[in-house]
Amino acid sequence: MSRFSFNQVTAKPWGLPDLVAGCVEAGVDQVALWREPVAEYGLDRSAALVRDAGLSVTTLCRSGFFQAPDWFDDNRRAIDEAATLGTSVLVLVSGGLPAGSKDLAGARRHVADAVAALVPHAAAAGVTLAIEPLHPMYAADRCVISTWDQAMTIAEQHPVGRVGVTVDTYHLWWDDTVLDKIARAGERIAIYQLADWITPLPAGVLTGRGLPGDGCVDMSAFHRAVDKAGYTGPIEVEVMNEELWQRPGRDVLAATLAAYRGVV
Amino acid sequence: MSRFSFNQVTAKPWGLPDLVAGCVEAGVDQVALWREPVAEYGLDRSAALVRDAGLSVTTLCRSGFFQAPDWFDDNRRAIDEAATLGTSVLVLVSGGLPAGSKDLAGARRHVADAVAALVPHAAAAGVTLAIEPLHPMYAADRCVISTWDQAMTIAEQHPVGRVGVTVDTYHLWWDDTVLDKIARAGERIAIYQLADWITPLPAGVLTGRGLPGDGCVDMSAFHRAVDKAGYTGPIEVEVMNEELWQRPGRDVLAATLAAYRGVV
Repeated sequence: MSRFSFNQVTAKPWGLPDLVAGCVEAGVDQVALWREPVAEYGLDRSAALVRDAGLSVTTLCRSGFFQAPDWFDDNRRAIDEAATLGTSVLVLVSGGLPAGSKDLAGARRHVADAVAALVPHAAAAGVTLAIEPLHPMYAADRCVISTWDQAMTIAEQHPVGRVGVTVDTYHLWWDDTVLDKIARAGERIAIYQLADWITPLPAGVLTGRGLPGDGCVDMSAFHRAVDKAGYTGPIEVEVMNEELWQRPGRDVLAATLAAYRGVV
Repeated sequence: MSRFSFNQVTAKPWGLPDLVAGCVEAGVDQVALWREPVAEYGLDRSAALVRDAGLSVTTLCRSGFFQAPDWFDDNRRAIDEAATLGTSVLVLVSGGLPAGSKDLAGARRHVADAVAALVPHAAAAGVTLAIEPLHPMYAADRCVISTWDQAMTIAEQHPVGRVGVTVDTYHLWWDDTVLDKIARAGERIAIYQLADWITPLPAGVLTGRGLPGDGCVDMSAFHRAVDKAGYTGPIEVEVMNEELWQRPGRDVLAATLAAYRGVV
């Protein structure tokens, strides 16, 4: 269990102090945090809470959304928040098309430029920008970076350690070329996240993910590819699921741990 | 309007005789038919109805579903139905993963084998098998062929005219590499279909498509690519949308024509 990290969104309604206590009680020593609940509890308070509990923060989820008018300042704040929380990985979700735009290629070029613009600040803070390719079904409204190749092409314009890529099984599993590419990605893998693909998809397609093992993703194949790349970092379970969110946080953590043990 | 073809599913609840009469009245002389409503009205009756009205059938939608136990016989029947209806193009949707399977690569290999097994019968009937890559969000439950590359790799194992690929803007628009590849596809393009990407997606993600121009797909870019490939065949508008299906068929046809004229 030494590589397991509990991603906060998996038990979204769980308050931060309870989540921290629950993790300690369960012997979980790594968590991934999200910006909104951290801001709600207070950044410095959150940092102190996890630090005092002996937890390490594997990633801060998430920044990006480069079509927003204040993307530059907001992403710089996110980098600072990551540093304050003691994590070196900030997950970037690029955002979708600007309203009314059909210029997908242009939006993708803008992401590359935006990442480049953020690298100096990230470097100064000791934070790796982890570009996350999201499933192509989010290309319009959530993330124009849809494939491993697109994320890697941007990352490779920068030094290893400054810009990396997020491997999320949910977003990448459909791609027949991705496992070989992940296996060759070496230190570009900034973080490895597990969620499973279950159908039917719910309206809005955001909250119907499954715990690892509950869907049709071949998790073993992903583990082998990530291993081959030499990745030895944390493995986050990050599942957005309305049914999980109805359950008490402690039960969700237990179910997540059981699912993780079933596939790792 | 000479290239416009009205895909029957765009006005799904419209009965075949009314659809045929409505097309004639609107000056539309090409339709794409679906197997289920054709079977319901009767295959020979359907063929006579469209022929007597002076309509040509651009494609029969759709066969495939190669994970079904009777896939071989059923696809041979579909080929015969296409020939009876006087169309030379049968659209193939590969089907998803077998129940409980996580072997996506294996399912994809099976599609290639299944297509190869069907080619002799298709050749004898003068029918082109048009493999349709469906959006990756359908990879689990509807179509394991998710990309242009996967479809082309299978098609290229067979002579031009025997196996081709369906260009559907809805399924391919997110792919940053696809336009150049379509432009180089030459006679492999078996049919060209238009539908637009609108959000939010509905539950099940099947019936939330938009009429061309209503979403974020750059239709002009697709037209240029298909032109460059030398494709001069029909352009089907194939939209599955619950709201359209609430409206009278004649109104749907009028709206579809207006949308088509707006983007072509």
